[in-house]
Amino acid sequence: MTVSSRPADLSAVSPPRQGLLQRLAAVRAHSLALAAPLSAEDQCVQSMPDASPTKWHLAHTSWFFEAVVLQPLWPGYAAFDARFFYLFNSYYEALGPRHPRPQRGLLTRPSVEQVLAYRRHVDAAIERFAVEADVQAWAAAAPLLELGLQHEQQHQELLLTDMLHALSCNPLLPAYTPAEGAPLRLVREQPEPLRWLRRPEAIVEVGHDGTGFAFDNEGPRHRRLLPAYEIADRLVNCGDYLRFVQDGGYRRAGLWLSDGWAQVQAQGWQAPAYWLAPGDPRAPSDDWQVFGLAGVQPLDPAEPVMQLSFYEAAAYAEWAGARLPTEFEWEAAHAAAGLRDMAGKVWQWTRSSYEPYPGFKPLAGAVGEYNGKFMVGQIVLRGASLATPAGHARPSYRNFFPPHARWQFSGLRLARDPQACTTASQETAE
Amino acid sequence: MTVSSRPADLSAVSPPRQGLLQRLAAVRAHSLALAAPLSAEDQCVQSMPDASPTKWHLAHTSWFFEAVVLQPLWPGYAAFDARFFYLFNSYYEALGPRHPRPQRGLLTRPSVEQVLAYRRHVDAAIERFAVEADVQAWAAAAPLLELGLQHEQQHQELLLTDMLHALSCNPLLPAYTPAEGAPLRLVREQPEPLRWLRRPEAIVEVGHDGTGFAFDNEGPRHRRLLPAYEIADRLVNCGDYLRFVQDGGYRRAGLWLSDGWAQVQAQGWQAPAYWLAPGDPRAPSDDWQVFGLAGVQPLDPAEPVMQLSFYEAAAYAEWAGARLPTEFEWEAAHAAAGLRDMAGKVWQWTRSSYEPYPGFKPLAGAVGEYNGKFMVGQIVLRGASLATPAGHARPSYRNFFPPHARWQFSGLRLARDPQACTTASQETAE
Amino acid sequence: MTVSSRPADLSAVSPPRQGLLQRLAAVRAHSLALAAPLSAEDQCVQSMPDASPTKWHLAHTSWFFEAVVLQPLWPGYAAFDARFFYLFNSYYEALGPRHPRPQRGLLTRPSVEQVLAYRRHVDAAIERFAVEADVQAWAAAAPLLELGLQHEQQHQELLLTDMLHALSCNPLLPAYTPAEGAPLRLVREQPEPLRWLRRPEAIVEVGHDGTGFAFDNEGPRHRRLLPAYEIADRLVNCGDYLRFVQDGGYRRAGLWLSDGWAQVQAQGWQAPAYWLAPGDPRAPSDDWQVFGLAGVQPLDPAEPVMQLSFYEAAAYAEWAGARLPTEFEWEAAHAAAGLRDMAGKVWQWTRSSYEPYPGFKPLAGAVGEYNGKFMVGQIVLRGASLATPAGHARPSYRNFFPPHARWQFSGLRLARDPQACTTASQETAE
Amino acid sequence: MTVSSRPADLSAVSPPRQGLLQRLAAVRAHSLALAAPLSAEDQCVQSMPDASPTKWHLAHTSWFFEAVVLQPLWPGYAAFDARFFYLFNSYYEALGPRHPRPQRGLLTRPSVEQVLAYRRHVDAAIERFAVEADVQAWAAAAPLLELGLQHEQQHQELLLTDMLHALSCNPLLPAYTPAEGAPLRLVREQPEPLRWLRRPEAIVEVGHDGTGFAFDNEGPRHRRLLPAYEIADRLVNCGDYLRFVQDGGYRRAGLWLSDGWAQVQAQGWQAPAYWLAPGDPRAPSDDWQVFGLAGVQPLDPAEPVMQLSFYEAAAYAEWAGARLPTEFEWEAAHAAAGLRDMAGKVWQWTRSSYEPYPGFKPLAGAVGEYNGKFMVGQIVLRGASLATPAGHARPSYRNFFPPHARWQFSGLRLARDPQACTTASQETAE
Ligand SMILES: [Fe+3]
Ligand SMILES: [Fe+3]
Ligand SMILES: [Fe+3]
Ligand SMILES: [Fe+3]
Repeated sequence: MTVSSRPADLSAVSPPRQGLLQRLAAVRAHSLALAAPLSAEDQCVQSMPDASPTKWHLAHTSWFFEAVVLQPLWPGYAAFDARFFYLFNSYYEALGPRHPRPQRGLLTRPSVEQVLAYRRHVDAAIERFAVEADVQAWAAAAPLLELGLQHEQQHQELLLTDMLHALSCNPLLPAYTPAEGAPLRLVREQPEPLRWLRRPEAIVEVGHDGTGFAFDNEGPRHRRLLPAYEIADRLVNCGDYLRFVQDGGYRRAGLWLSDGWAQVQAQGWQAPAYWLAPGDPRAPSDDWQVFGLAGVQPLDPAEPVMQLSFYEAAAYAEWAGARLPTEFEWEAAHAAAGLRDMAGKVWQWTRSSYEPYPGFKPLAGAVGEYNGKFMVGQIVLRGASLATPAGHARPSYRNFFPPHARWQFSGLRLARDPQACTTASQETAE
Repeated sequence: MTVSSRPADLSAVSPPRQGLLQRLAAVRAHSLALAAPLSAEDQCVQSMPDASPTKWHLAHTSWFFEAVVLQPLWPGYAAFDARFFYLFNSYYEALGPRHPRPQRGLLTRPSVEQVLAYRRHVDAAIERFAVEADVQAWAAAAPLLELGLQHEQQHQELLLTDMLHALSCNPLLPAYTPAEGAPLRLVREQPEPLRWLRRPEAIVEVGHDGTGFAFDNEGPRHRRLLPAYEIADRLVNCGDYLRFVQDGGYRRAGLWLSDGWAQVQAQGWQAPAYWLAPGDPRAPSDDWQVFGLAGVQPLDPAEPVMQLSFYEAAAYAEWAGARLPTEFEWEAAHAAAGLRDMAGKVWQWTRSSYEPYPGFKPLAGAVGEYNGKFMVGQIVLRGASLATPAGHARPSYRNFFPPHARWQFSGLRLARDPQACTTASQETAE
Repeated sequence: MTVSSRPADLSAVSPPRQGLLQRLAAVRAHSLALAAPLSAEDQCVQSMPDASPTKWHLAHTSWFFEAVVLQPLWPGYAAFDARFFYLFNSYYEALGPRHPRPQRGLLTRPSVEQVLAYRRHVDAAIERFAVEADVQAWAAAAPLLELGLQHEQQHQELLLTDMLHALSCNPLLPAYTPAEGAPLRLVREQPEPLRWLRRPEAIVEVGHDGTGFAFDNEGPRHRRLLPAYEIADRLVNCGDYLRFVQDGGYRRAGLWLSDGWAQVQAQGWQAPAYWLAPGDPRAPSDDWQVFGLAGVQPLDPAEPVMQLSFYEAAAYAEWAGARLPTEFEWEAAHAAAGLRDMAGKVWQWTRSSYEPYPGFKPLAGAVGEYNGKFMVGQIVLRGASLATPAGHARPSYRNFFPPHARWQFSGLRLARDPQACTTASQETAE
Repeated sequence: MTVSSRPADLSAVSPPRQGLLQRLAAVRAHSLALAAPLSAEDQCVQSMPDASPTKWHLAHTSWFFEAVVLQPLWPGYAAFDARFFYLFNSYYEALGPRHPRPQRGLLTRPSVEQVLAYRRHVDAAIERFAVEADVQAWAAAAPLLELGLQHEQQHQELLLTDMLHALSCNPLLPAYTPAEGAPLRLVREQPEPLRWLRRPEAIVEVGHDGTGFAFDNEGPRHRRLLPAYEIADRLVNCGDYLRFVQDGGYRRAGLWLSDGWAQVQAQGWQAPAYWLAPGDPRAPSDDWQVFGLAGVQPLDPAEPVMQLSFYEAAAYAEWAGARLPTEFEWEAAHAAAGLRDMAGKVWQWTRSSYEPYPGFKPLAGAVGEYNGKFMVGQIVLRGASLATPAGHARPSYRNFFPPHARWQFSGLRLARDPQACTTASQETAE
């Protein structure tokens, strides 16, 4: 097979095709950049069934293009290695059997080098396809290539959260990057007081409006009747959350949902997943510290609290005399004046289970498994985190995880029912 | 302690108090009637952590009155046995430690007789309390006594479903009652064609209107904007479901939610929990049979399918080209002309996760744990089943179970998004 | 089938047959006597997969006669209920499929009454068989009837240990019998000093000598070369063991075998299974107490320690600067002058894995599964306990349990390698 | 710390010290040679809790010298990294807490390079110690250095078996080395008929005689009385075992020990762990194949069967009308004329549980945990395998694994009780 060795001549490709190829190239390169600070050993490890190795992410995102676009739509396509269809399928039943998820970390072969060659093979094939595809084939392929691009961006965030989890299991608590470089670290700020913004009862439009790309789960756009509510102008920060911890938050059953309390007891939770209590033998200190991409750092009271499960977010809200916003409240308020950090710091747990919107239809074909089949047992998170690739998220974006998940960049913003005594100065209007 | 030996003189009790006592007596007697066909052995067994022994239900429903009403509100109350506060607390963290749920079946002592004596003790104490309580004490107690009554009715249904599960684990498949008596058995009918009723877009009121008793989770009553939808006039019956089974329903991943498919594979599901395939060695037959309270019976195509998990209900709906109604669609349609069997045959899985209504506030005190803390990871069922005590349920009633639960009298009714070609004759108006 | 209703005329039966029938009748009656203090609820419960319900023991010991003797050797035999062959087979692969062991406690039916009727049916059938069997049939049956009798005696002890385990799981800690009656309780004695008996190097005969009944695992009798050793004249008692506990025995890894220490940590062991530490909420006291057949009693320092696992016995011996005897040392010493309590109080863990003797051959037929297939992963115990039926055990008797088992009447006697300074007065000769 | 950078001047070191250093250097170099064909990814993976990563083996064998010799006996020793005492302690309770065994595969850091630097640091320190240690210190250290050398040899075999297990979990079934090189592969031979060698009853000496190194578990040397027996002159080979498989060996409960049959059913065993049945999708073929260090190869009937559990070995022996030899029979026969392959191909399961010899005393100090604490629940294997380093094993060597372990180079040799009809030509005399 010669596809990968012969660079495609892109000069004759139409501007729309070129545009997509350029965006693809940028996204594909970003995946490699994220993996760059990691050794081959780091890239191979799987720290729990829910997390995947870096190398697997790099391969799976290539498999997606191969299995969803190249293989079905380009008769001339020759696979890099036919066995990879088995190894790197994640959960697509329609695309055949697959390597068991909990055993992804056992794949020391193919090596990182072979995976990188696989990526180059797929990249080259997409370029050749863009040159050779007739109008009809391209029309079928373009939305799937776009989906593959968005898919790869999702895995870029997972690559970081999964790697961070693996590093957190190492008693040496190594940093993803040395502290000097400190990419993906939030800037140290002053804690700010929390203000409530009141939102009046309204019928609001929810869901993606059709401009640009969106996942199928963001539609159809539809109307919701929202009662009045109040939403906090900022995220809950580590200083807030430390007060909850120090007030016995993890020992008071009454603050927790029943399933959450069961987790607290069964897992021995005493603080967020990556917090180190004073005296932790892994990194001696008299103060609380937080492990993150930059390694162990002093707890910063102004930094948003992260790596929370939904259970912890809900217990905190209960302790604070508030609640979590529904995903509809969040979306309706997203552009309100005065709201800070709606995206770019942490994903924000909502009080909404992940359910289909009225009239929801999954995509046709195998990619119909992308979102719809997960619509039970999951909680919606809104916003975006420091690990979300630039330009990936939207106000209508519906991220989701099970309520016990605590290895994501997931925090919270409070909401509450309208308070009689709220002063007018806290009112807000869009 | 002499409370139980001296009958209270109820002649001087006010009519409202008498009324409540009479309703209480009737409910309490019904619990005993449900246990009557069961041996002491039957009443002691626990077939899985999620199910409880009959005897435990009988004791726990008494404990509820003791721990929630008598102990806190009647200074003179002497407990039947102080250790029962530990043994028969279910999940109320505020009311102290408790016997582990998975070990309820190990309580061969106290015996059934002692539990019956415990019940009589509590019954007598309530009567005495009704005689002796001053106005203030009664005002505090009355709503809790009412709650205890409703609570006992809920456990009456669980007593049956839990017992049926235990009997289903016995290879002899014994009947709860001999087939002749056949109480709680649905009448054999002709299968009827399914008709769709169209409901237009509307803003509807949802939740209990405040008339009579309701659980806290049924309120506050509030408005919802519902898009147009269609709902089936009848339940899915065994004949319908058998076609799904015979069409490979349990072997086609594409029909299932991801968690549901994982269950199908891990548990080897091939049909509803209590169905016996032709040739089952426990009850030889050439045809499908169904195990129930009356023992093993031939599959009746007209009978509603039951003992389904949410996953199975959702997979069936997918197979049928439809979906489940949301709990709001169900409630909004409940009184529509032409809808049959909205209550009294099976609980109906909805496509709604169990979440707090806007402005939801749990009850004050320990009974605040009754509903609110379970509002994650559960799916709402609406209606009522053949095992629900008469007069217990309401259109606003929100039953809930985790999506894998399949030992309840739980079935389904289909809904779907509006079809362009629906004829006018299928329209309905309330 | 009329077998059970017509008493057999035993007057014409030969004396040997009569003798066996009488012994059978006595053993069968003893099983009923052991069950007599128990309610139907008690008799149905199964507290762990390794333990069986009383009712199951009563039925299974009847099944043994049915499946091993009556069914194969008496063409005219009519089973009481053909389904019982499935329900009450324990582990005999050659005798067909069986009800899963961990689900024995779910068999609320057949009821105790039905099981008792089953027993009477089998008893009557054996009598009829004794009347009708020709010489050949009886010759084949007699050793199997004897085996069934011995088998039932083994289950008599298990009935007590399994029931005691179930009662120990009940926070009420009920007594098997009220403390007054106190059967099966050891007499309170004065603790006595421990003396060592020296045994010289010798070639000894090990195994059953062929006189009277023995299980297949007790043979063939063969010679062993035993180095010199010393053995304690008495059992380790609760006073001894309390010192081990109070000396941190359960917190010092160095005293334990690796698997034992893993158990200590995983299970949180801090004392023998049925000991209650001072302050235990189930039975308030300032002192240590011990739960047993007579309920909770003050710890008696002179009483042999029981309900120990092999791991605990071995750790104690290590702490005491000694070791456990091998089963061969135990057997060789059993008749030595001065050794007390070799049988009748507790089974004594040895330092011998349960392995076949040289030349071991299991019994022919299905009963070949009786012992041989368990000869891995088990440790031999010697002696007999307070719960062993009179006349059941022998010096060559090999009881066996896995090393973690701690619900039997299992204790220990120390041994050690010869000490240079042992005085002559401690020498012993048989 | 400069130890590692400055080579020690060994010219002044005494010949005995030099001799030990040379042997150490050779063993240490062999570990590196074994790891050489493996990528960093390969060296990091842990495929099950019982197996360890290559990198961990390389580090742990260095830790052993550090924790057992350098740290306690050389006051001037500076650790390479103090945290490694925690990371690379295996199971020595006396040497402090340690990284949990099932999480060894999560240690992507330290990297392979750092581990190699750690090895060089320790190597250099040992050399410096040999130069600087006074007579007393060296006298204390020398036996521990020898133990460390033997310890490293043991881990060399584990490095291979653990790595092979990890590779076997990869659907690509990669070879440890390309098939051309084929080291550690047995030469293809003709199957030979099996002959029985008769051994008469005798009192034999068992255990190490004190010449040269031996582990504590090989002593004290003592006498055993062995009845007459017969032992096979060759190992069971793949051709033999294939007949067992094809005769339904894995489907016939009657051939198996009870625990073994439970494993067969629970794990779905149908053949040895690394056998591929005809049609296996991982390596299509019409014939049976075997996975090993050289990758997938056609089943060679003459090659000894390996990667068997004790359960499988015992079931095969039962099927063959024979049994396994005891470890004493094996040792007594080891030098008999005519016995082939007693060492160097596969470890041979015996019918002996791993127990202390009479008078056994563990080594003093932390290394007392080396063997003694594992003397329960394990079965002895005798001989040595193709993966055992040259010169490591001895006839008195006692290898041990739990009976379900099937990832070692473990096979079997048959034994049996004397047969009446054995012809004189099969007699053997030492
Ligand atoms: Fe993906
Ligand atoms: Fe309740
Ligand atoms: Fe038995
Ligand atoms: Fe080691």
